[in-house]
Order: sequence, then C-alpha cells, then structure tokens
Amino acid sequence: MLHMIGIGLWDARDITLKGLDAIKKCSKVYLECYTSALSSDKSDLEKLYGKRLLLADRLLVEDGKEILDSARTSDTALLVIGDVFAATTHIDLLNRCREQGIAVQVIHNASVLTAVGETGLELYKFGKVTSIPFHNKDVKSPIDAYRANSKIGLHSLFLLDLDPPKKRFMTNPEAARYLISRKVNGSTLAVGCAGLGSPSPQIMAGPLSMILEASFSLVPQCLIIPGKLHFMEEEALDRYKVL
Amino acid sequence: MLHMIGIGLWDARDITLKGLDAIKKCSKVYLECYTSALSSDKSDLEKLYGKRLLLADRLLVEDGKEILDSARTSDTALLVIGDVFAATTHIDLLNRCREQGIAVQVIHNASVLTAVGETGLELYKFGKVTSIPFHNKDVKSPIDAYRANSKIGLHSLFLLDLDPPKKRFMTNPEAARYLISRKVNGSTLAVGCAGLGSPSPQIMAGPLSMILEASFSLVPQCLIIPGKLHFMEEEALDRYKVL
Repeated sequence: MLHMIGIGLWDARDITLKGLDAIKKCSKVYLECYTSALSSDKSDLEKLYGKRLLLADRLLVEDGKEILDSARTSDTALLVIGDVFAATTHIDLLNRCREQGIAVQVIHNASVLTAVGETGLELYKFGKVTSIPFHNKDVKSPIDAYRANSKIGLHSLFLLDLDPPKKRFMTNPEAARYLISRKVNGSTLAVGCAGLGSPSPQIMAGPLSMILEASFSLVPQCLIIPGKLHFMEEEALDRYKVL
Repeated sequence: MLHMIGIGLWDARDITLKGLDAIKKCSKVYLECYTSALSSDKSDLEKLYGKRLLLADRLLVEDGKEILDSARTSDTALLVIGDVFAATTHIDLLNRCREQGIAVQVIHNASVLTAVGETGLELYKFGKVTSIPFHNKDVKSPIDAYRANSKIGLHSLFLLDLDPPKKRFMTNPEAARYLISRKVNGSTLAVGCAGLGSPSPQIMAGPLSMILEASFSLVPQCLIIPGKLHFMEEEALDRYKVL
C-alpha cells in the first residue's frame, strides 16, 4: 500500500496523529524534497518518526517506479510537505496506483493554499494560482492568470520558486520585480507572505513598488495581488500595512 | 493566548502533534460545531485530547466575547474542523485579537479546499468557491460564480450546506437539482465528492443529470463543475466515471 501523507508547512510536529500512525507501519518512508521545504531538517523528522527517511528528488518521484514497486509489496510512505496533491506529479502517482491496483491511503494536511487565510483575504475568493519560476524571462503564465483573475474580481496567489537542496528561495521582492517588469503597475496593492504556518509568519501589504524594497526573513515566501476587497478584508490588510 | 487550531476533516486522529500540544496546555477548549462535522463525536475527541470540550455554536463564535475574554487571561483553544480560516467569522476573531492585543497562535490543518485534489483536478485551477444553502429559492451567487469561473476556464467548487446539530447535510443530488433549476445544462460534467479526508472518499464524475440520480453515503459532500481540462485531469476523472 502507498501512504501519501501530507506533513504540513513548518516543522516536524505539524504531522497528524494519523500520519504518524501510518509512518510507523511502513517499511520504507520517502520524503519528497523538491517542491517545498520545512524548517525542520531530515534528522529532526527521523527522530520524531522513529524511521530512516529516503530523500525523493524530482527524478525519483516523476519516474515513480521505485516507489510504486515498493508499495506493491509492502507498506510504503511518500511524505509531501504541505498537503498531498498540489503538484501534478503526485496526482500522477495516485493515478498510476489506481491503474496498477496498488492500494492507496491519502492523509491530508495543511497547505499554503489555505494558510494564506491568515492574511484576512477570503479563501473562497482566490482564483487561478501560478508559480513564478527563477528563470522567467519568457514566462507569461503568472501575468495571464492575474489578468484573468482580476477581470472577475478574484485574488491572485503567486507561489515562488525554490530549490531546497541548494537552499535557494525566491523572495517577494524578486517576485515584485518580475511582475513590474511585465507591466503590472507598481502602485498595485500586493500582500507578501513569508513563513506561513510558522509561529510568526510575516505578512506585509502595500504597493508592489514597496514590496520590492521590503525585507522578509522567513521562507518559503508567496505573493498575493488581491482582487475586489470586502470591507472586512480591507480592515484585515490595514493591519499589515507596515510599509 | 488564543490558539486557533484546525483539526482536519475526518476523525479525532487528524489533529497535528502541534495542535495536541497546544490543547494540552489550555484551560478552556472550544469546539466550533456549526460550519462542518467530523465522523468522530465530541466524546471521542475529549478522550483523545484529555480535555473537556465546550461546544461553540454560531452565536457564541460570532459574538466572540466569551472566547476572547477567556483568551485574554488564560490559554484558550478554538478548534475548527478543516483549516482555520475558511469562515469569515474566524478571520474576524483573529482581527479582534490583534485589535485587543490578545496573542494568537494559528495551527493549520487539512481543508476541503485542498482535499478536492483527490479528484485529480488541479488545485491551482479552482476559481471562486461558493456555498449552496438549504434555502436557495432566491440564491444566485453559486450560479454567478460558476459562470464567471467558467468564462476563464476555472473549476467551480460548491460547498453544500449542513446543520450538524440536526445531522442534516445537503447531498450532491440536491445540489445538482439546484443547479439544473437555475438553467445549468443537465449534460454539464460534474464531480460529486463525499467524505473527502476519510479512508474511502466517494468521488463520481458524470453529467449533472446523472449526479441527480447518484447515491453518496458519506457526509459532508461537495460538488465540482470542472472548467477547462488538461488531459491528465481527464484521465483522472475517467477513473471516477462510474455513472
């Protein structure tokens, strides 16, 4: 059986009791290590879980064969930071298990897609989510998504690229620079978030041109351009206007 | 301090270790009991948490005074099914804590908004989310949201009304009937979900007119009308076309 287990957003103790129960009975436990990062390192997780973790990089997860072969004959866990199905690769693994008759247990957990609720922006009013990659010279999709979302009043969430093995994380100022370089007006209200899911997430609201100058110390970071605001959302954002 | 703690989607063991740590040190623990429901009942949670739970109904949470008064002087928890900030009332509580200088700890957990990833539909492509209320004779907002989302190719998620104290939950067939009565074409592809977050969620894909006849045994339920589908999403949905 393949146990696909979300392990949440910040540290080792963000795992659920159910997730921990499942890990305990697995003979192999893979940690997907390229789509996001925790503040805890591998050894913290191993200590808490009482298991050795195998790092699963992009190649191993996209290929999937090693994980599926293991799950076919024994309880195998794939740990995913955040919730389980943000990345299409993980949906693909689920589909392949179903195709190949491998039993699957899914254990959900917190995701940045709902942790952004801490900004006070209504979760029901977010539109298409896009990622801003490091290499973005020819990348238009975040701008297209933002224009489409804002046409119908929805909030746009941009997830920022990261390369955890190299400890490289795109920052909100870099994201703001990308958006402004693509002709998004510098006066557009934006909300920069860092370390959502941590005990003290950093949230700053202000024009993109000021996010460009702001300093966020936590990672990962994400940026929001709000759509049409309800007065309660405005009130909430006012609290974050530290710029 | 107010500890706002998501407790996940299905049963008592969906709480995180961090959530449980926080509950253990609280002198008062409120369970918000009107926006969703678990399969575990209050006594299961009390047994696992080792604490007596105070039920917090809509009046108590919207008024907020009792909870904030307690949090001002002692560690107080508000447990929310799913993640913490799906309801505006909970954002309002957070804002009031910040206004009144009451410290807040937020502990996130799984939400139906990302558990819908199990359908194989990409989470990044969901648009505005709306609720279909029991009394919907004059309710247009779900239809407006669906039309706007589909104009830009996004998936529409409809959350279905529920009244946990009365064990009353709107079903996918009822939601399909509402949509069809509002001139959404019966041939429109829809995906009905029930018990997302449970060990065996029920997911069925097919035209709305067939969802109308389908039977789902788990609750809560939610309905999706997909937008523009990627071939991988189509493949995933094919697996659920049991109608």
